[in-house]
Amino acid sequence: MEDILKQVQDGTLSVEKAKKKLAGYEDLGFAKVDHQRKKRQGFPEIIYGEGKSPEQITAIIEAIKSQDNDVLATRIAKEKASVICEQHPELIYYDVPEILSWKQKPARVNESDGYIAVVCAGTSDLKVAEEVAVTAELLGRKVRRFYDVGVAGIHRLLDNAEEIQNATVSVVIAGMEGALPSVVGGLVAHPVIAVPTSVGYGANFQGLSALLAMLNSCASGISVVNIDNGFGGAYNAVLIDQLANKA
Amino acid sequence: MEDILKQVQDGTLSVEKAKKKLAGYEDLGFAKVDHQRKKRQGFPEIIYGEGKSPEQITAIIEAIKSQDNDVLATRIAKEKASVICEQHPELIYYDVPEILSWKQKPARVNESDGYIAVVCAGTSDLKVAEEVAVTAELLGRKVRRFYDVGVAGIHRLLDNAEEIQNATVSVVIAGMEGALPSVVGGLVAHPVIAVPTSVGYGANFQGLSALLAMLNSCASGISVVNIDNGFGGAYNAVLIDQLANKA
Amino acid sequence: MEDILKQVQDGTLSVEKAKKKLAGYEDLGFAKVDHQRKKRQGFPEIIYGEGKSPEQITAIIEAIKSQDNDVLATRIAKEKASVICEQHPELIYYDVPEILSWKQKPARVNESDGYIAVVCAGTSDLKVAEEVAVTAELLGRKVRRFYDVGVAGIHRLLDNAEEIQNATVSVVIAGMEGALPSVVGGLVAHPVIAVPTSVGYGANFQGLSALLAMLNSCASGISVVNIDNGFGGAYNAVLIDQLANKA
Amino acid sequence: MEDILKQVQDGTLSVEKAKKKLAGYEDLGFAKVDHQRKKRQGFPEIIYGEGKSPEQITAIIEAIKSQDNDVLATRIAKEKASVICEQHPELIYYDVPEILSWKQKPARVNESDGYIAVVCAGTSDLKVAEEVAVTAELLGRKVRRFYDVGVAGIHRLLDNAEEIQNATVSVVIAGMEGALPSVVGGLVAHPVIAVPTSVGYGANFQGLSALLAMLNSCASGISVVNIDNGFGGAYNAVLIDQLANKA
Amino acid sequence: MEDILKQVQDGTLSVEKAKKKLAGYEDLGFAKVDHQRKKRQGFPEIIYGEGKSPEQITAIIEAIKSQDNDVLATRIAKEKASVICEQHPELIYYDVPEILSWKQKPARVNESDGYIAVVCAGTSDLKVAEEVAVTAELLGRKVRRFYDVGVAGIHRLLDNAEEIQNATVSVVIAGMEGALPSVVGGLVAHPVIAVPTSVGYGANFQGLSALLAMLNSCASGISVVNIDNGFGGAYNAVLIDQLANKA
Amino acid sequence: MEDILKQVQDGTLSVEKAKKKLAGYEDLGFAKVDHQRKKRQGFPEIIYGEGKSPEQITAIIEAIKSQDNDVLATRIAKEKASVICEQHPELIYYDVPEILSWKQKPARVNESDGYIAVVCAGTSDLKVAEEVAVTAELLGRKVRRFYDVGVAGIHRLLDNAEEIQNATVSVVIAGMEGALPSVVGGLVAHPVIAVPTSVGYGANFQGLSALLAMLNSCASGISVVNIDNGFGGAYNAVLIDQLANKA
Amino acid sequence: MEDILKQVQDGTLSVEKAKKKLAGYEDLGFAKVDHQRKKRQGFPEIIYGEGKSPEQITAIIEAIKSQDNDVLATRIAKEKASVICEQHPELIYYDVPEILSWKQKPARVNESDGYIAVVCAGTSDLKVAEEVAVTAELLGRKVRRFYDVGVAGIHRLLDNAEEIQNATVSVVIAGMEGALPSVVGGLVAHPVIAVPTSVGYGANFQGLSALLAMLNSCASGISVVNIDNGFGGAYNAVLIDQLANKA
Amino acid sequence: MEDILKQVQDGTLSVEKAKKKLAGYEDLGFAKVDHQRKKRQGFPEIIYGEGKSPEQITAIIEAIKSQDNDVLATRIAKEKASVICEQHPELIYYDVPEILSWKQKPARVNESDGYIAVVCAGTSDLKVAEEVAVTAELLGRKVRRFYDVGVAGIHRLLDNAEEIQNATVSVVIAGMEGALPSVVGGLVAHPVIAVPTSVGYGANFQGLSALLAMLNSCASGISVVNIDNGFGGAYNAVLIDQLANKA
Repeated sequence: MEDILKQVQDGTLSVEKAKKKLAGYEDLGFAKVDHQRKKRQGFPEIIYGEGKSPEQITAIIEAIKSQDNDVLATRIAKEKASVICEQHPELIYYDVPEILSWKQKPARVNESDGYIAVVCAGTSDLKVAEEVAVTAELLGRKVRRFYDVGVAGIHRLLDNAEEIQNATVSVVIAGMEGALPSVVGGLVAHPVIAVPTSVGYGANFQGLSALLAMLNSCASGISVVNIDNGFGGAYNAVLIDQLANKA
Repeated sequence: MEDILKQVQDGTLSVEKAKKKLAGYEDLGFAKVDHQRKKRQGFPEIIYGEGKSPEQITAIIEAIKSQDNDVLATRIAKEKASVICEQHPELIYYDVPEILSWKQKPARVNESDGYIAVVCAGTSDLKVAEEVAVTAELLGRKVRRFYDVGVAGIHRLLDNAEEIQNATVSVVIAGMEGALPSVVGGLVAHPVIAVPTSVGYGANFQGLSALLAMLNSCASGISVVNIDNGFGGAYNAVLIDQLANKA
Repeated sequence: MEDILKQVQDGTLSVEKAKKKLAGYEDLGFAKVDHQRKKRQGFPEIIYGEGKSPEQITAIIEAIKSQDNDVLATRIAKEKASVICEQHPELIYYDVPEILSWKQKPARVNESDGYIAVVCAGTSDLKVAEEVAVTAELLGRKVRRFYDVGVAGIHRLLDNAEEIQNATVSVVIAGMEGALPSVVGGLVAHPVIAVPTSVGYGANFQGLSALLAMLNSCASGISVVNIDNGFGGAYNAVLIDQLANKA
Repeated sequence: MEDILKQVQDGTLSVEKAKKKLAGYEDLGFAKVDHQRKKRQGFPEIIYGEGKSPEQITAIIEAIKSQDNDVLATRIAKEKASVICEQHPELIYYDVPEILSWKQKPARVNESDGYIAVVCAGTSDLKVAEEVAVTAELLGRKVRRFYDVGVAGIHRLLDNAEEIQNATVSVVIAGMEGALPSVVGGLVAHPVIAVPTSVGYGANFQGLSALLAMLNSCASGISVVNIDNGFGGAYNAVLIDQLANKA
Repeated sequence: MEDILKQVQDGTLSVEKAKKKLAGYEDLGFAKVDHQRKKRQGFPEIIYGEGKSPEQITAIIEAIKSQDNDVLATRIAKEKASVICEQHPELIYYDVPEILSWKQKPARVNESDGYIAVVCAGTSDLKVAEEVAVTAELLGRKVRRFYDVGVAGIHRLLDNAEEIQNATVSVVIAGMEGALPSVVGGLVAHPVIAVPTSVGYGANFQGLSALLAMLNSCASGISVVNIDNGFGGAYNAVLIDQLANKA
Repeated sequence: MEDILKQVQDGTLSVEKAKKKLAGYEDLGFAKVDHQRKKRQGFPEIIYGEGKSPEQITAIIEAIKSQDNDVLATRIAKEKASVICEQHPELIYYDVPEILSWKQKPARVNESDGYIAVVCAGTSDLKVAEEVAVTAELLGRKVRRFYDVGVAGIHRLLDNAEEIQNATVSVVIAGMEGALPSVVGGLVAHPVIAVPTSVGYGANFQGLSALLAMLNSCASGISVVNIDNGFGGAYNAVLIDQLANKA
Repeated sequence: MEDILKQVQDGTLSVEKAKKKLAGYEDLGFAKVDHQRKKRQGFPEIIYGEGKSPEQITAIIEAIKSQDNDVLATRIAKEKASVICEQHPELIYYDVPEILSWKQKPARVNESDGYIAVVCAGTSDLKVAEEVAVTAELLGRKVRRFYDVGVAGIHRLLDNAEEIQNATVSVVIAGMEGALPSVVGGLVAHPVIAVPTSVGYGANFQGLSALLAMLNSCASGISVVNIDNGFGGAYNAVLIDQLANKA
Repeated sequence: MEDILKQVQDGTLSVEKAKKKLAGYEDLGFAKVDHQRKKRQGFPEIIYGEGKSPEQITAIIEAIKSQDNDVLATRIAKEKASVICEQHPELIYYDVPEILSWKQKPARVNESDGYIAVVCAGTSDLKVAEEVAVTAELLGRKVRRFYDVGVAGIHRLLDNAEEIQNATVSVVIAGMEGALPSVVGGLVAHPVIAVPTSVGYGANFQGLSALLAMLNSCASGISVVNIDNGFGGAYNAVLIDQLANKA
């Protein structure tokens, strides 16, 4: 802001232009695409596909690409994806997590960098777990998957404990097995992001039980994101993993 | 009531007729159409379409038109609308907010009058936002739309702050971004009507989270209507905007 | 903002000072008193007393008075008030609604102005009702009180209907009698602000039942504030009453 | 029981038979049809159709008819009803409330008897209201219907007040307008049975809001049955109306 | 109303007086005592003591007595009662249910009349059960008490079944034993009013569990009042018992 | 029942006496002490002390002792206990679980019998854990305690795994650590009774989170009792342990 | 573990192999099939079919069979079952409870063994009741079914009381009739496992009401599993029945 | 584990000792103090004081100090603290956040390291905010406090935006102003830990509203800990800040 004010003071920038410069978005009518996001938050705006039409998504993708930014769109049902890909065959679609993506150049992953452990309790949580894993990979981080390691057969988890402990950060996904983040949190010395899922029956109440179990965990380094919010879990983990490897 | 009592006293009105006069509605069997509503509340009865058959809606519309009143019907799904419009091609249908309407004469809007700011957080809240905007316009007020100005990229909101501040009243619609009315409420000096929407995932619980967030806002001039109740938000705003411009 | 930018452009304001001008608050360490509030929102910052010590409240009052602003503090328990008033005997304490106030000059109320109807269902809601009434009066508006007019004996309400109808805006307070705003809303043509209270027993669940009943009302011009939030109800009504009388 | 014991004492009834006599039901395998119900409770067993197959319902109907009892079955979707009626064309189907019935001889209604007032708020509550009205009529009572008399236009209710007051008992059905039983309860001197419905949107939460509003009513003579439980509302009213007319 | 209108027509009643006649209450400032209640609902206004000061209660009692009406006040804590009784030693205080009462002449109970069965599950529900029993007696009905007959030892209930079956109406009070009204409802042929209590621990959630269990009962003749609302349970039972014995 | 019926048939038992025999309880007015409980359920009636006065408890104890039955009373606060023990110094009071007991002869525990594992997560759950352990011991079973073995330091649990696995049945008590029963359930081959406690803060909601976590566990052999219901947990375990050792 | 450590000490087992031995599962990528389960918990891993594809289920079945273990898969919808059975015609499908099973040799049931009582309230709970009964039978226990014995006609239950009392353990399934486990629990001296179902309407809230009613029961020997969790109810009962018959 | 196994293989460690070595805790009877925590998780066991007696806390402190570990105890009410400090005057007590601490040597903070931003909305959230700040400082990190920067006067927040943006990680504490983390999350490029507090009134429901608002935020880098869990917020932030500065 100081730069802009100084340019105004110098007369090198008109008051009118100074005001526009602060806006930093493109108005599509139904949406205002945030072009400042990358500078402000490290990543360009990411598209949340639910409740948007293929036409709206296409328009936003084009606005993002026009700024030479990478594209990452989550919650894109298969039918929507095929409509969008007809016009943009350069996009890549990930089936299980329903993610649509395009990158200007392949992500450069440092050999020496750490990795994110994606840990999940059961087969039924796979979709959310893959949303975590693929999102993190597309945002340029290394990922290792530990699936079906629920506490009902705890040896499966303990057997993988060392490899999980060596990660920079863990993302733990569970619906029925709300206990899993507690157990992982007790085994590792790094931050754990817990993602409750709406999978389960009876008194799971669409993920509420898992959410509450995770919030009440006694293990200290656990924080929680919204139910089924695999993207959010990934994003937090990526920010932490970047910090750990930047220094 | 006093007029009627006086006419009874004068003998110009029979006791029997006096009793009927107080009724003021037309009985269609399944519904009692309220013909006194316009006198009592400023607007004729407005039809809530959900759960009513096209035949029922048509009958109510005809009862309202027979009293030379304007027609405004919300929550009319597209299929219902086309059935009704076959018999009443003079009706106009608004696609996105699913509103059906007919006016005796076009609304007269005073040039000098204020306007209602309709502010919404994301593309997925568009349907409810348009229910607000179209309802308010059909009830004769000026409206300005500010869409996709969520707090995750707050410069988009701040950039429009002045134009929102100059409105008479704001209606703020949000599902996932329950924070938006708080932020708008902190920026403006006029009343803010908050409309929570059921859009969102995970722990939004069909709009409950947004509703609670809005009720708990620290900003002072905010009041809340029911989840997804765009019509209610508009109606409140129209009453306030009328008061402000009538004086 | 444009003014400040222009002054910067003209050189009449340094970049450093321009930045400070935008801050507009005084930092007391534990609190940042908002001196811009009056300009931005029409009223100076109002103090919410719950959870603050008498010393903290006294310090904030002094910061507000130092800017020649009026003082309005809600939720000041009697014991706190007497501590504060020892140092500031010029403050006036309102017992029932637990409000502490000071005004530079007495509020000027226009003879011709409208009034706010404060309607409440039962004796047990009196405290919140008085928080509404006294707040509105201290903010400079005329108020008429309609107490104990619950629907269980609806003639008490109907008997006062005309005087309520003539108000600019109504604030309806109820705990057990969540039906009251619906009935008032059906009788009047102006906006109704509903304030649920936590008074009641059994399945009232600390005001939740009243809150839900009010949100679900079929009457159109009703909006709702938080449980027991008499201040919020008053503030909304004052904004509306001002708009109606300003024009 | 004493009779049976005495017969055992007299030797006119064997211990084995005495035990069977106490059973008093017919075992269809998937269901035990209660043949003692009429003697114990005044009415034969009534069939709740939801979740039962047409074959199961037919079998239960035949078991009931074999005991010369009347048939009353609620929640019979149209498709199920037509399957059942193929084999039992003597059954009568009520379309709106989805009731299937057969009576040995037409109900005898005393001219001088009182009637049950069935009061409902809006067109969308009609289905439940008709479940109340038809059930009560089939159980042999007189019914008067007062539909669409919600409090948003209270003159429609007041206009019918006298006829409602003259009933023996009222059943008040409402989804969005949870206030209605309170208002009716304040007008009448007889018992009011309130039936919340799941109709509504937003924070109605499938009838929970209406249920809570009704439970918290200040009016004294109101009791509540389960959400959408029109049958239960009718049954309670019938028991009371019988008591009032029996004496 | 017709009488008043006719008097107006005849000129025997002025318009001004006619309006006052419709009011029918006495305004104490903090309360409007409803003098029409007895005519409209069969009983004079009953005082709900919670949240009212002894002075307020005394003033209301005096207003009621000035109209030659009986006094019935519930939820009067012992300390309040002794303050009130100093000035009004003619009042009688019932210790367990915390009821204060005064009657012009002793209630006349017909020998031949029916009785109300007050059934309760455990010792901890005694307070609410006594609120039911004493209220019903003070309103002039016969009562029989069946205490500690919970289903955990069902023989205690079955042993009293016949005497319960012979009542006109039952009021069943239970906190932990939400099953009791279902079992009673299955045994009797008369209406059952269920009163959930907030007594219990763990997942009783202040009576919510008992309330839900009672609402979901399969037995047909059960309706429910608010948690701990012994007065409401009694009032409903009295209305029904009166109807049954009046005819 | 057959015995009694036969005696009636033989004439060795009068009808009147046969009816009394079925009653099997002693009526203290405020309570009906169930003397049949021991025969029907294996244990005499156990007293739940909360909400009962010392006098009431003493009377019930005396009724139980008069039948030569053992006394077990839970939730007896220290003050109550000392009042009761003045008259009955033979009673023994257990401080932490607030249990009062008396046994005719010391429990005979078979050397070869199995034991109940009482497992608890943290120091703050000790009170409920001791209610489990002491109740089970007083009902004649062997108990081993495993305290403070929460999953945040899972080696503390694994270290004791073998001894827990060798129990007949486990009772697992936890408030914040709702995950514990899942982990124990995954380690053992016997039934696990889970007891959620109300200990915890924030979103534990008085034990609701722990309760839901336990109900949703993926481990198969877990069932749950009410929040803080240590007695219930013990009672279930005792029934199972008896079955296992009886055979 | 000690065995493995000793073999390591003896040099008969390499450190590398010792680590693998502790793993005890087969990794299919999407799932880790737990081969240690039978040894650890008495039964091989049981498949929960919901949310798994037929291909995934087939793969897990093959992994289990490759270890000479029996197959038990619950929640296998009919369509999925027919896909799986094409490749594995040796599997048996149970229609009502949607269970798929295969056993190496038929279960040997001891003549002298006890049995599990499966008690259910209504026809609409049949599906869950059959999940209990068939699971218990496939796990090798004897079962007796008591269906449609709800408390609304309690003689149907009392008539079967003796046969239920003679069982080793009862599983009681109920949706609307949450009272049933309380009543059964009061009649028997053995453990009762309660299974709430999501069947019901109105305020049953997907089984929450039944769940809460069961948790709050006063009868002592009751514990509860998750809503609709017939498998869990069966599994607990089987563990207990085994203990009782093993000894 | 491999080390221990190898020592066993070499014969340098007996099987018995190997088993003990894996335990790694000290058993105080009521608690098992986890001495392995520091090695496993980076910090020694931290004491949660609520529900523990001063004697228990003292014993745990001594066990920790005996291992040359630092002491950190949260939720130590003032009275408890003074009892404990009599015996251990070397401990330091922090008044506002109720923390008790002792360090072997003063924390070494690197000049060049980043800092944690502790951001809070209002004065009433100060206690939890200080629990965050003091905990983080005692665990050896740099902290900057930004208090009373709620969105109702957003310039107070924007004015501090740059200094917040330069932090490594933010912890945002809010009770009534659930919107704050969203707004902060939209301004910064680093992870945000949100801590809801139970401060607020009406429909805040002990922090539930703030919790839900935070979980539903649209801003991407936000995760949430339990209500009032300042310690948890701090611990997560410390782990992240360490990672960022270690590299």
